[in-house]
Amino acid sequence: MAIAQNYMGPLATNTMTRINENDNVLGTIIVNCEGFPETTTLDSLTAATYCTHMRNLSHHANNALKEIDVTGELIIIRFVAKKTEAFVIPDHEFHLIVVMRKT
Amino acid sequence: MAIAQNYMGPLATNTMTRINENDNVLGTIIVNCEGFPETTTLDSLTAATYCTHMRNLSHHANNALKEIDVTGELIIIRFVAKKTEAFVIPDHEFHLIVVMRKT
Repeated sequence: MAIAQNYMGPLATNTMTRINENDNVLGTIIVNCEGFPETTTLDSLTAATYCTHMRNLSHHANNALKEIDVTGELIIIRFVAKKTEAFVIPDHEFHLIVVMRKT
Repeated sequence: MAIAQNYMGPLATNTMTRINENDNVLGTIIVNCEGFPETTTLDSLTAATYCTHMRNLSHHANNALKEIDVTGELIIIRFVAKKTEAFVIPDHEFHLIVVMRKT
């Protein structure tokens, strides 16, 4: 899988390559702070749909957790569906989304 | 922990008791289809906050997954924060929310 490396340093590139080498990983998306996919190994339509929804969901979840505990901070969200799993790892500048085949 | 058993059959009551016996479980909430806590082992304010947010989040996530794959169906969402983890198990009539201490 070819990964666009426009904005990533070698460490990030290595990590992304390592994640994508896992046979169960269907694709990864790095979402920038404006909500657009920065680099992805999925097709652009799927990536755009994931970006829009997952970013909103992670913001909503983070706000909800902060309402329950002010010192709380969201680390990861895992969505398990019948056939796939999606992981969202929020960060200040970028969000990482990993889509996996369910094992 | 005392659990209100208004609407639950013995099987559900046993399951809830088993979950609550786990030392890392801080509390459980059963949310009805109107979004109100049916039974909970948390205080009512925390339970209400979890109910409102987690139910919205699980609806949003389910719709997002259906937009990506029409046959997709959400089974569980796991929110991992610094100190706690929350699990939301959506169902047609009830949602189960489990809040755990992070191990």
